[in-house]
Amino acid sequence: MKAQKKTSSNNERLAEVYRTAAQIILRKGYDATSVNDIANALGMTKAGLYHYISGKKELLFDIMTFGLDELRDECVNPAGSIKDPTERLHFIITKHAELVTRGQGVITILVDEITALTPAQSRKITARKRDYFEKLRNTISQVKEEGKLQDINVTTAAFSILGMINWLSRWYRPEGPLSPDQIGEELSRIVLNGLIRPEARGRHGLKIVN
Amino acid sequence: MKAQKKTSSNNERLAEVYRTAAQIILRKGYDATSVNDIANALGMTKAGLYHYISGKKELLFDIMTFGLDELRDECVNPAGSIKDPTERLHFIITKHAELVTRGQGVITILVDEITALTPAQSRKITARKRDYFEKLRNTISQVKEEGKLQDINVTTAAFSILGMINWLSRWYRPEGPLSPDQIGEELSRIVLNGLIRPEARGRHGLKIVN
Repeated sequence: MKAQKKTSSNNERLAEVYRTAAQIILRKGYDATSVNDIANALGMTKAGLYHYISGKKELLFDIMTFGLDELRDECVNPAGSIKDPTERLHFIITKHAELVTRGQGVITILVDEITALTPAQSRKITARKRDYFEKLRNTISQVKEEGKLQDINVTTAAFSILGMINWLSRWYRPEGPLSPDQIGEELSRIVLNGLIRPEARGRHGLKIVN
Repeated sequence: MKAQKKTSSNNERLAEVYRTAAQIILRKGYDATSVNDIANALGMTKAGLYHYISGKKELLFDIMTFGLDELRDECVNPAGSIKDPTERLHFIITKHAELVTRGQGVITILVDEITALTPAQSRKITARKRDYFEKLRNTISQVKEEGKLQDINVTTAAFSILGMINWLSRWYRPEGPLSPDQIGEELSRIVLNGLIRPEARGRHGLKIVN
C-alpha cells in the first residue's frame, strides 16, 4: 500500500478503488458487501484487489481516511488562509458540498458506517470529524463576533450546515440538472441567507439574492 | 398486535417498545442488535417482548410505520389545513424537527436502515417517504408561485430542509441547552431566512430576525 502510494497513477487507481467500494457499501450496507462485490464492480479479480487493500475491515477505515484527507486538503487547509469569516464560511460550504457530490459516497460512508469500525479506528475517525466540526463552528462564532450573525444558536447552525451537506449524497444525482459547483453555490446561498444579517451581506463578494 | 392497539395504555407501551428498540438499533446498527438487547433495555423477558412484536425483521418495518404515522398525524395532516404556504412551511419544519428530537431515533431509523427491509417492506416505506417529500416540495413551490422564494432551486431547498432535520438525531441531546420546541424554531428560522425573500417575511406572524 505504502509503495503504491508513491506513484500518481497508483494513487488514482487507489482512489478509484475507494470510490467504487464506497458506492457499493452505500447501496448494500457494509455488512452485506463482500470483497468479491467490489472486485467485480472494478473489473478486477479478488487477488488483484488485494494488491490495493488489506481486507474488508481495513478498507472501511482506509476509505474514511481517504475522505477526510480530501476534506483537509481541498477544503479545510485552503479555508484556513481566508481571513474574513463570512468568506471562509462560504468557501467551506461550497467546497465540502462539492466533495460530497463528486466523491460518490466516500464522504457519506464516513458518516454512516462508523459502527462497523474497530474501537481504535472509530476513535481516530471521530477525532478528525470533531476537529472539522470545531473549525466550522469557530468560523460561525467569528461571524457572530463581528455582529453579522442572525439570532441563531452557533452549534445548531454548524450542525444544520453539516446535515444539509451530508444529505446531498442521499439525493444528488450527477445526471440531474445541477452540477457539483452549482449545488455548492445553492447550499451556501441558503445558508448565508439563513445565517448572515442582510445588512452584513454583500461586502464579501457573496452573491446576494434578494 | 392488532388487539393490543385497541387500548391506549397498550398503545403507549408499544410506542415505548418502538422508541427503545429504535435507540438501540441506532447505536449498535440493525444487524448487531438482538431481540434480547431490546428486551433487556425494556426490563422485559424475551417472551414478554414477543407479546408486542412478531420478530426482528417485522419490528424494523413496524418502527418505521409508527414513525411515519406520527409524522402524518402530527405534521402532515394538520399542515394540510394551513392555507398560506409560508406559514405551512414554518409549521412543517417546526413539527418535523420536534418529532425527530423527541422521537429518540424512531424517525432516524426510517432513514438509515432501509436496506435491512424486505423488498416489499422497502417499497411501502419508500412510497410513504416520497409522498411526504412531495408535500414538502409542493409547499415550497407554492411559496415560489407567490413570488416569495429567493432564487433557489425548489428541489434543493426541500432536500436541504430534510437533511437539516434528519441530522438532528445525530447530534441533538435532550439534556442540552435547547428544548425540542426551541430546536424546531431555530431550524425554521434558518430555513425561512434562507429561503423567503426579506420583503415577503413578517406578514405571516413568523418571527423575523434581522
